Amino acid sequence: MGIAGEAREAVEALRREVSALHAELTRYGLVVWTAGNVAARVPGHDLMVIKPSGVPYDELTPDAMVVCDLHGRVVEGERVPSSDAAAAAYVFRTLPDVGGVVHTHSTYATAWAARGEPVPCVLTMMADEFGGGIPVGPFALIGDDSIGRGVVDTLRDSRSPAVLMRQHGVFTVGPDARAAVKAAVMCEDVARTVHIARQLGEPTPLEPKHVDSLYDRYQNVYGQH
Amino acid sequence: MGIAGEAREAVEALRREVSALHAELTRYGLVVWTAGNVAARVPGHDLMVIKPSGVPYDELTPDAMVVCDLHGRVVEGERVPSSDAAAAAYVFRTLPDVGGVVHTHSTYATAWAARGEPVPCVLTMMADEFGGGIPVGPFALIGDDSIGRGVVDTLRDSRSPAVLMRQHGVFTVGPDARAAVKAAVMCEDVARTVHIARQLGEPTPLEPKHVDSLYDRYQNVYGQH
Amino acid sequence: MGIAGEAREAVEALRREVSALHAELTRYGLVVWTAGNVAARVPGHDLMVIKPSGVPYDELTPDAMVVCDLHGRVVEGERVPSSDAAAAAYVFRTLPDVGGVVHTHSTYATAWAARGEPVPCVLTMMADEFGGGIPVGPFALIGDDSIGRGVVDTLRDSRSPAVLMRQHGVFTVGPDARAAVKAAVMCEDVARTVHIARQLGEPTPLEPKHVDSLYDRYQNVYGQH
Amino acid sequence: MGIAGEAREAVEALRREVSALHAELTRYGLVVWTAGNVAARVPGHDLMVIKPSGVPYDELTPDAMVVCDLHGRVVEGERVPSSDAAAAAYVFRTLPDVGGVVHTHSTYATAWAARGEPVPCVLTMMADEFGGGIPVGPFALIGDDSIGRGVVDTLRDSRSPAVLMRQHGVFTVGPDARAAVKAAVMCEDVARTVHIARQLGEPTPLEPKHVDSLYDRYQNVYGQH
Repeated sequence: MGIAGEAREAVEALRREVSALHAELTRYGLVVWTAGNVAARVPGHDLMVIKPSGVPYDELTPDAMVVCDLHGRVVEGERVPSSDAAAAAYVFRTLPDVGGVVHTHSTYATAWAARGEPVPCVLTMMADEFGGGIPVGPFALIGDDSIGRGVVDTLRDSRSPAVLMRQHGVFTVGPDARAAVKAAVMCEDVARTVHIARQLGEPTPLEPKHVDSLYDRYQNVYGQH
Repeated sequence: MGIAGEAREAVEALRREVSALHAELTRYGLVVWTAGNVAARVPGHDLMVIKPSGVPYDELTPDAMVVCDLHGRVVEGERVPSSDAAAAAYVFRTLPDVGGVVHTHSTYATAWAARGEPVPCVLTMMADEFGGGIPVGPFALIGDDSIGRGVVDTLRDSRSPAVLMRQHGVFTVGPDARAAVKAAVMCEDVARTVHIARQLGEPTPLEPKHVDSLYDRYQNVYGQH
Repeated sequence: MGIAGEAREAVEALRREVSALHAELTRYGLVVWTAGNVAARVPGHDLMVIKPSGVPYDELTPDAMVVCDLHGRVVEGERVPSSDAAAAAYVFRTLPDVGGVVHTHSTYATAWAARGEPVPCVLTMMADEFGGGIPVGPFALIGDDSIGRGVVDTLRDSRSPAVLMRQHGVFTVGPDARAAVKAAVMCEDVARTVHIARQLGEPTPLEPKHVDSLYDRYQNVYGQH
Repeated sequence: MGIAGEAREAVEALRREVSALHAELTRYGLVVWTAGNVAARVPGHDLMVIKPSGVPYDELTPDAMVVCDLHGRVVEGERVPSSDAAAAAYVFRTLPDVGGVVHTHSTYATAWAARGEPVPCVLTMMADEFGGGIPVGPFALIGDDSIGRGVVDTLRDSRSPAVLMRQHGVFTVGPDARAAVKAAVMCEDVARTVHIARQLGEPTPLEPKHVDSLYDRYQNVYGQH
């Protein structure tokens, strides 16, 4: 019962993309050792491609990626998938518009998560990318759907593609894996900047009307079309 | 109505220079993902060369740069220009001595901007490069001349080639693009050092006569001539 | 009285491994200049392989590594071994399950050590890797068994593979050298994250039952098997 | 009146060494743009080799180095020497055992300098390398012997090879240029670690007898002989 036809091609392309995108996590210092991963939905199929568990970033290849169903069970691949496969699978299963999920323990974002404190929206870049503050999700143990459910429930109440899971780390989503990686990069960047700003005073929150206006513009005008 | 003759050559040279200078922004960690850009005036013409919007730094080439007029309208190039094209154009249009404009959200400088606090002149390196503190410009929304006007108005009251735009990020200027990039690098460097100094006490401001003497010397004696 | 037979092969393999693992210390910024080292036990023999003293990381080769007995005396090699050879030897001599010892002065971990303060367990990643907080060992001078004894005595009271030696730096252990390097990388990562979290508030400690559950799972389920 | 014979060879070797050593300043992030330099005495001659002023580190070559006399006047080379040539020359002229001088504005060390606060000796690594705390020198303007005199006067009262020049940056010395570079690297490393330690409490100073014992051992036993 292998993967065939059009799904085959999509899986091969996503194996290459998911493998390569981990280089963005190391480039921006969001991960150490093997602690972070990228997952991509196979569009139109109840499948996802994810990093294998505990494999160093230097050793990642398209072939080493693992294909799972949307309950995190291995469909193709000789490796054990990331222990975050269940969480990513829950997100894909529940939110049909999400095509990519990224998990990191990036330093500044995780520091906010350790205190259970959302990052307030005090920078235009946050309004652009997150449409407001970055919310905090519940404390949840690994091993069942708790983390995935915590991520999804928190995403529903926010425009942010990033959630700070309490005392744990960051989960980000996007229409595809690259967008979720971008959200992870931006999340750490603004978590760091706002942390540093607050070390010597209290930055003023942006006015909601400005947040809305910036968010709207960035989502619709920025970039190449 | 293409660009011809001597302007042609200048544009080609600036496409190469502007494209290459972005590597200094990534080298010094002033930008993440696609969030920052360099613009250069085409000397003697109402034209500028600027980064395309939302294109990763790894993919920048001279050909990918966009040529705009000094109202930010595309004159040559197949990409959408940086969303900061209007701001850069306003600066070039208003300040004839400025040949380069750089925009970043570099961490420490943006942290000062988030609090709306100027960086006080407590280091000889600041006197050398900035001739005093680094000033804060107004909060301004993207989309018209507001940001450009805020930058220009703030620059007029200061010797600093850098402005911290409130709750946004950094704009720097220079006689050419390379000088504006240098100002962006130095701005983040001193914003970081002064931030860290202030975490454990209050550094003494330099005396104005020392600031003047250092600024004068650095602007006239330092470097190769 | 050279090293022969099966020990010969093991030593050659460990010379290569120990030499190469130092690249992880520089990659993650745990060491500057020559200040940090990796040591590996030669399994089944009272021997260990360790970095030479004061040699830059760029110049390390398998041949430059030094083989010592478990009292830190040179058995093979033309260089003086690391001044931490006595400490590593004491650990190997005393704890038969330890196959690797790493020493660094990584910044954040050493900052906790400078205050003599253990890193509290406030992150799931700490529960996973350290099974609780990271403990502080005594102040000890170099030159005899004091450092080794301080490391071993502190390790006995904890599940942590890392010890913060007071006003000195970090020692980590593992079943092999790679595991000890991983512990050093993770130690700095969580020391940094928890430091930054505490700069703006007090993170809540994880509940002991959650720590136990996470530790158990990570040690037995994570990774490839 | 060129440089001939044995001085010729020494100068050529030092041109290569001084040029190459700047790569350690960039590797450890001690300098940005062109803001820092290495100088080496030509042993047995009243000459020194120093970086040219305002030249990017990427463009340094042995040929680009400048040879000056010990009053900072150019003896050989087509470039203007570093504006710190006068300070380095003063140090070489006054302290016959010094063979290398390095100047940086490395972030954490300069932050201590901005407050005019010495780095207290709270780490064994500081006792090893600096034999105590890192002292602060006076505020001095560039342009005559003031900086050099400030450095020398401060070095005389201390075992430290590093001086934090008030509101300016770091000067380090050593028996040769490489040792001065090492001191600059270690100075920033301990300035950073002690800064971070103090953010969350007050580390205890080492006892003077321990400082003496560690310093003595490190200066005489550490490394290859």
